[in-house]
Amino acid sequence: MGALESVLIDGAWRPSIDPQGSFRASDPARAEPIGPHFPVSGPADVEAAVQAAARVAAELAATPAARIAGFLEAYADAIAADGDALVALAHAETALPVEPRLRSGELPRTVDQLRQAARAVRNHAWTDPVIDSKAGLRTHRAPLGKPVLVFGPNNFPFAFNAVAGSDFASALAARNPVIAKAHPLHAATCQRLATLAHRALLASGLPAAAVQMLYRFDSATGLKLAGDARLGAIGFTGGRHGGLALKAAADKAGVPFYAELSSVNPVFLLPGALAQHGGEALAQEFFASCTMGSGQFCTNPGVVIVPTDAAAGRAFLDAAVALFEAGAPKILFSRDGQHGVERAVATLREAGAQVLAGGDPGAGEGFRYRPTLLGVDAADFLRNAAALQTEAFGPVSLVVRTSGLADRVAVAAAFEGNLTGTMYRADDGGDDAAWQAIAAELRPRVGRLIASKMPTGVAVSPAMNHGGPFPATGHPSFTAVGMPAAIHRFTALHCHDGVPDALLPVELRNRNPGGVQRLVDGQWSTADIG
Amino acid sequence: MGALESVLIDGAWRPSIDPQGSFRASDPARAEPIGPHFPVSGPADVEAAVQAAARVAAELAATPAARIAGFLEAYADAIAADGDALVALAHAETALPVEPRLRSGELPRTVDQLRQAARAVRNHAWTDPVIDSKAGLRTHRAPLGKPVLVFGPNNFPFAFNAVAGSDFASALAARNPVIAKAHPLHAATCQRLATLAHRALLASGLPAAAVQMLYRFDSATGLKLAGDARLGAIGFTGGRHGGLALKAAADKAGVPFYAELSSVNPVFLLPGALAQHGGEALAQEFFASCTMGSGQFCTNPGVVIVPTDAAAGRAFLDAAVALFEAGAPKILFSRDGQHGVERAVATLREAGAQVLAGGDPGAGEGFRYRPTLLGVDAADFLRNAAALQTEAFGPVSLVVRTSGLADRVAVAAAFEGNLTGTMYRADDGGDDAAWQAIAAELRPRVGRLIASKMPTGVAVSPAMNHGGPFPATGHPSFTAVGMPAAIHRFTALHCHDGVPDALLPVELRNRNPGGVQRLVDGQWSTADIG
Repeated sequence: MGALESVLIDGAWRPSIDPQGSFRASDPARAEPIGPHFPVSGPADVEAAVQAAARVAAELAATPAARIAGFLEAYADAIAADGDALVALAHAETALPVEPRLRSGELPRTVDQLRQAARAVRNHAWTDPVIDSKAGLRTHRAPLGKPVLVFGPNNFPFAFNAVAGSDFASALAARNPVIAKAHPLHAATCQRLATLAHRALLASGLPAAAVQMLYRFDSATGLKLAGDARLGAIGFTGGRHGGLALKAAADKAGVPFYAELSSVNPVFLLPGALAQHGGEALAQEFFASCTMGSGQFCTNPGVVIVPTDAAAGRAFLDAAVALFEAGAPKILFSRDGQHGVERAVATLREAGAQVLAGGDPGAGEGFRYRPTLLGVDAADFLRNAAALQTEAFGPVSLVVRTSGLADRVAVAAAFEGNLTGTMYRADDGGDDAAWQAIAAELRPRVGRLIASKMPTGVAVSPAMNHGGPFPATGHPSFTAVGMPAAIHRFTALHCHDGVPDALLPVELRNRNPGGVQRLVDGQWSTADIG
Repeated sequence: MGALESVLIDGAWRPSIDPQGSFRASDPARAEPIGPHFPVSGPADVEAAVQAAARVAAELAATPAARIAGFLEAYADAIAADGDALVALAHAETALPVEPRLRSGELPRTVDQLRQAARAVRNHAWTDPVIDSKAGLRTHRAPLGKPVLVFGPNNFPFAFNAVAGSDFASALAARNPVIAKAHPLHAATCQRLATLAHRALLASGLPAAAVQMLYRFDSATGLKLAGDARLGAIGFTGGRHGGLALKAAADKAGVPFYAELSSVNPVFLLPGALAQHGGEALAQEFFASCTMGSGQFCTNPGVVIVPTDAAAGRAFLDAAVALFEAGAPKILFSRDGQHGVERAVATLREAGAQVLAGGDPGAGEGFRYRPTLLGVDAADFLRNAAALQTEAFGPVSLVVRTSGLADRVAVAAAFEGNLTGTMYRADDGGDDAAWQAIAAELRPRVGRLIASKMPTGVAVSPAMNHGGPFPATGHPSFTAVGMPAAIHRFTALHCHDGVPDALLPVELRNRNPGGVQRLVDGQWSTADIG
């Protein structure tokens, strides 16, 4: 197989012990392989990584908060300093635009996310201390004491990268070792990030095996690893099919599996909002959101519910069809991705949707698909709602034509769990009765309910919920984005009962020199006790 | 099958639609059936209950907090007022002592737990509002919008009862309908509690199907129900074998499964503590804890790690053997329970443990087992640690004889996930180096780390963690006891993005007349916004 790049195991870059093959990344715009040859790891690499991570878990759990925060900040600084090279690599491997997406959007977001995690570490905000001084009970969130396995997705080379994104930052903030599974479609970007992480790790004095990275392994090896009880938790961002298989393996071993899977993110355009803004303006907003990043977003507006009983609804639809029809083909990450979109569109058509615009890859080189709009009447949608919620991971959306509020409410009630649900409402409140009727069904089916804007933006805020009911995720009460909440996924609840002060973790002691926010005998306080 | 008692479905007591058989409770002290004949429900009862609960889920989710709290308080009052009759029934069905256990312990605890849940409802403490006013993001915990299925255990007729205990109170507090699966061993106690719950429900104006109860169904029906995606979550307290089977079904359907399963609750006696208190005194404390409730506690001290390299350790062991040997047989809940203990003791013996005292049911009527102490050397424990952690759900414990700290640390490292872990330490700090060495291994393996007292007490406090790593529970970051934390299990995270004030849930609006504690732009506050 010639010279293969090294993997990061047990504190060092070293050749794969048992490579099962090799692969290269591709330039999506030309459909040509680029960059070096990376190894497909076998069971020996995986076992070495798990053993090394398990070996340092206790040491990492006992590491002072300042040192963890120092690592996260140093790594954030290193990414920021290396921004030009990282952006160039990620652009070459993903074809995502340099501006504004990679340089002004995703890279600073990733740096900021690491810094937010560092702040949550420094102020202990993620530890949620609760103290009952009379009963002698003191509880907080603590490290799992076991490695966290992170699977990064194909669509965010920085912000959700297994070795730099939200899961990574969250797991490390809670002082758990991370075994990162890179995404092979941007392997060189992962390699460069991991190199920076590794250097920052050594400089910060954390255990060298606290961050490891493998590029790729086959699905049997992945399933065996996901079911390894030596793991403390798994973070996964990716497609539903592979995600649910890994979840089943993890569930059986009792390993919490935090999945962010597919979502079609229904968008309801209410009649008053259409009248206020005009169908054309909303169609432009919709088209821009649906085709941004070539539609390869987990919060892409995949289903739009349009009141075609209103003139502005029909105008929206006409304008949307024209925009999609005129749009140039969008570059997708991979040949597999293109085939996936083709299969999804075929599934939607077989389920009764009509192609209104696009519907094929279009001409030209590279992995691509034309902006595509499909349409279906509400009654047909309701007859075949499961198949018509098939996610097409690309610049594709399905319009559901509805007539009357009852139609819209029925469609809302047919959705499975999603990350987001959106309603465009009139500013004057004229849609609010409809809002409330639809929200009664939509609200419990989505993690984030959005008013009057497209769902694609996901702010990194403590008040964000990037999560939602199954099957959008594996659990309805966790978020993958937003510090410190995202950290909670990788924690264990630890109660200390009658334990003397000197033997308590710092944030549970009587003296509180760090001014940690604590719930003490029912009152929030940053003060010392007694 | 003659006259069968009614089941509580869809707001009314009514005959089972499709009884598959019938059963009666037993008097454990005489091994004789007592009380009326109850139905074993079939699929039609189960389906009717799920449909009714799903139908009222949205109405219940929209019910004002005060009305939910009113129900919980009215129900608490009704239980308190009916205490004598409830205690008499529970005593007859379980043989648990009236005093202090049932009348002065478990009944008031249950009443108080419902009132604590009501307080968390009135002050919205369980909703954890987080507001980012600049980003327009407002997130809180909300009802699941789906029914919660609760399986009650055999060992707490009140405090963990499916229709009165912590899971019930938690699920209702979060405004989710409850389908209670009674425990057949105290069916009449469940019936009486459900009657009180149903009356309080109607008086409070909650949807009549918000609380339903079935007595029993076969395991195939139970597995099908646990895998029903119409459920929002499942609370289960019980044995590992059945619990893991239900968990697998729930996991597959994406239904969060909160299990509290078996636990052996290791207790380490450190040399300084033994020297301080004397082996005899600690042996008495241990014997009392191990035989309380006939040892049928999830926090029963099932494994005790003794430094037999110390004279006081040997004195402890001698005294413990004498106490267990002299102890009268203890009454167990059922013939199955007795057989389960017999099997567990056989498993422990086959795995290398020696019987030091007891080891058989003893003479006399009723379901029973003698206080039983087994022993094993550390090296043998380590050789066969999995089998030697078999839980015997009765007055049975295993002593592990250790010599030197390294032995003790190695034994700590061999434990799987447990609810509790205990170390007895000397007040003068002489054991603290040993504490820290053992805690490094024990802490990540237990939910509650206890100093110098037996683990059987579980206070209902916001700072309690009655949970722990798999396989003690299904998830390391949730607690089954302690308000408001226990409520979090039955919530979904709901973000509102750009939603106008009037359309927000009350605790997320700008005005905060209830003085709800909220994290607003990084600061805890009970004030209005803006």
